[in-house]
Amino acid sequence: MKIINFEKLEEAVFKFSGDRDWDQFHSIKNLAMALSVESSELVEIFQWMKEEDSNKITSDETKFPKVKDEIADIFIYLIRLSSKLNINLEEAVMEKMKKNIEKYPVDQFKGSSRKYNE
Amino acid sequence: MKIINFEKLEEAVFKFSGDRDWDQFHSIKNLAMALSVESSELVEIFQWMKEEDSNKITSDETKFPKVKDEIADIFIYLIRLSSKLNINLEEAVMEKMKKNIEKYPVDQFKGSSRKYNE
Amino acid sequence: MKIINFEKLEEAVFKFSGDRDWDQFHSIKNLAMALSVESSELVEIFQWMKEEDSNKITSDETKFPKVKDEIADIFIYLIRLSSKLNINLEEAVMEKMKKNIEKYPVDQFKGSSRKYNE
Amino acid sequence: MKIINFEKLEEAVFKFSGDRDWDQFHSIKNLAMALSVESSELVEIFQWMKEEDSNKITSDETKFPKVKDEIADIFIYLIRLSSKLNINLEEAVMEKMKKNIEKYPVDQFKGSSRKYNE
Repeated sequence: MKIINFEKLEEAVFKFSGDRDWDQFHSIKNLAMALSVESSELVEIFQWMKEEDSNKITSDETKFPKVKDEIADIFIYLIRLSSKLNINLEEAVMEKMKKNIEKYPVDQFKGSSRKYNE
Repeated sequence: MKIINFEKLEEAVFKFSGDRDWDQFHSIKNLAMALSVESSELVEIFQWMKEEDSNKITSDETKFPKVKDEIADIFIYLIRLSSKLNINLEEAVMEKMKKNIEKYPVDQFKGSSRKYNE
Repeated sequence: MKIINFEKLEEAVFKFSGDRDWDQFHSIKNLAMALSVESSELVEIFQWMKEEDSNKITSDETKFPKVKDEIADIFIYLIRLSSKLNINLEEAVMEKMKKNIEKYPVDQFKGSSRKYNE
Repeated sequence: MKIINFEKLEEAVFKFSGDRDWDQFHSIKNLAMALSVESSELVEIFQWMKEEDSNKITSDETKFPKVKDEIADIFIYLIRLSSKLNINLEEAVMEKMKKNIEKYPVDQFKGSSRKYNE
């Protein structure tokens, strides 16, 4: 079974900011901004790429390590946020998936990007 | 020990898109965009808020559930991306933290937002 | 000659916020966030669309008015920012284009997305 | 009267991409992404800054030129998009402002960030 040791990650990221006295900058508002900035850095890698080329990114030796780093950065801010807000990520996803299943009934949305988009 | 059952989440999110035939829309490029859109929806909640008020968001009965949902949405796209790219999120974070520790030596960056920002 | 009457737009957007006492929320930091949120709302319209379909958006009677509104919202925040910062948009673009021309010499970058991206 | 010579800017930005054969990358979808990436680069400058410090950015000799460049980049993509989509920016803003005035009646929204935010 694949699991994520959340506690280990949480400790690592909070030790890092604690050691540097950076918690003072980490209001929820600022962390949300930082997360969105990191996610744009991920987008930037793909912005001029064809979709089919983006799907082959794992074999790009220059860009794939950068993708990995950006994904790590996004997860780091997500860990900070969920930890500060006492949000259990596993539960939050399961609850949201339940809402999504109700919001998008299979028979109405199967294969449809149009409705998906609205 | 707090852990995330990644496998359970992965199965849930891929069953959801599989059932709806939505995998066709989920190129890496599009997923990166979707993740950044969700992270902006999180930012939107805080955009006119004072930092100190953002830190009290858990007691806002209207907005906190929305924050939770947006954080879940971000994690859902992160699960999709890391799964498709075969990125182990736990390892990726630990490796990135190692780089960050080297990049920002405590003695030079302690308490400094100026350097942090550059 | 196509011109934009900047002064008219500036007056309209500042009268709007002045009448509502909303200038108190419009720090440069918040305006930058709001601009990025609006630009993500524009992205959202296209996130699952094929590139070629995005190029035909003007004939989509439902989505094109939304595109127009989002572009207007982005420009509104750009007007607020440049006005508060005393930045002359025309001059700023001409200066930036000069830098771009030097940074990307035609003979090295012609037709190249790879280099463009780096 | 402050005006923007839109035609001059339009010619400059399209000559730039034409000379480099970059129009092939500039689908509406990609341009929207690029605009959102640039706007996040603007946000990044302010992400750890206090709001009051962001309001003094014009006197920061290192950061203000960067702010100017990012604002120019955002406007450049806005020019590309509005030109390709045949959107008259001045008209689009005036129409959107009319909608905003109706959506947020002064007597209900004066001074209110709460409602503003919803």
